[in-house]
Amino acid sequence: MHNVKFMYPVPIQKLIELFTKFPGIGPRQATRFAFFILKEKNSLVEDLRGALSEVREKISICNECFRTTEREERDEERCAFCRDSRRDHRLIAVVEKESDMLNLEKAGAYHGRYHVLGGVISPLDPDSPRRIRLRELHERVRGLVADDASCEVILATNPTTEGDTTALYIERILSPFKDQHPALKISRLGRGLSLGSELEYVDEMTIKNALNNRK
Amino acid sequence: MHNVKFMYPVPIQKLIELFTKFPGIGPRQATRFAFFILKEKNSLVEDLRGALSEVREKISICNECFRTTEREERDEERCAFCRDSRRDHRLIAVVEKESDMLNLEKAGAYHGRYHVLGGVISPLDPDSPRRIRLRELHERVRGLVADDASCEVILATNPTTEGDTTALYIERILSPFKDQHPALKISRLGRGLSLGSELEYVDEMTIKNALNNRK
Repeated sequence: MHNVKFMYPVPIQKLIELFTKFPGIGPRQATRFAFFILKEKNSLVEDLRGALSEVREKISICNECFRTTEREERDEERCAFCRDSRRDHRLIAVVEKESDMLNLEKAGAYHGRYHVLGGVISPLDPDSPRRIRLRELHERVRGLVADDASCEVILATNPTTEGDTTALYIERILSPFKDQHPALKISRLGRGLSLGSELEYVDEMTIKNALNNRK
Repeated sequence: MHNVKFMYPVPIQKLIELFTKFPGIGPRQATRFAFFILKEKNSLVEDLRGALSEVREKISICNECFRTTEREERDEERCAFCRDSRRDHRLIAVVEKESDMLNLEKAGAYHGRYHVLGGVISPLDPDSPRRIRLRELHERVRGLVADDASCEVILATNPTTEGDTTALYIERILSPFKDQHPALKISRLGRGLSLGSELEYVDEMTIKNALNNRK
């Protein structure tokens, strides 16, 4: 009867398509986003465009720990933590991603440096060890053990299959250093009951860990 | 011990803040989005910036039905549907938002025009009737009934409290036309069982509607 098919205008379609690439976003929510932006058109589009340019222009990656840092901060490409001499540079917490640092810092119990892997090793993806910053960690630890003072690498990956695989892999590639330098300690975050969890609903593995780590 | 607080670089914070405004997005997912963009930096930032500019520059709103339309399409600010003479202009489906048109069109059973309200009337928000395009609908219907030929307004709002409130409100403001022009019909989408639903789990109201609308 009618041959004009219903389609969103091309620019909206493009925007929807881009939002569909975002993690956890399907076509339906991407459409909501696009129309939300259209509604807030004047202010939000400018703000978003500005924020995107700034991210492109001002963000660089710290040469040492690989978290993001603002390029303006200083000429050298090291983040505020890596330049902070009060933070113990002989203590490195290895995290999967930058957002994992947030809660470690909030807890206020850690005063060392970090190493952001930028991903995990997936047993299903043989390329994954090459994609994360393992070589860089290896180099850092090599520099650390050179003067034979005590130092520690804390493997703070997530307690998931992939996080555990990654931690095991790192332990393996760092073990030659450990053999030669007894002053190097490699540790992992303690396992046990989370605060507020109920024994009735806790999984077996957590119970086992809680029993093994009892004091 | 250390006074350099953990913070994401300012451009990332800004981006996270903007994403937090998106519908259904909390700070955690906004952070995921920001780091996703950082990871895909080169291509995605440019694509997004481009798409946002295009939306700003090329999208306008159809003067007649208020759906979005591409400004380039033609000089006059009417969408493809409103220019399509094969679509019955004496049949107007009133929808809450543009994305509601998609399924109506997909079903292929509708060959009239539309009216996009751009929202609903919320019983809790006394300003909401002024924010949606009721005056514009009123004007359209006034034009429609002027020549006393048969015409129909289908209230295709959602079967929710707000959608029903909106439909009732519209029925009320259009009723003077109906009294003067018996050729004007005002209808609402039929209620009943959705395809694939199971009686066991269907709510009371739907059962009632299904009984009332039985054939």
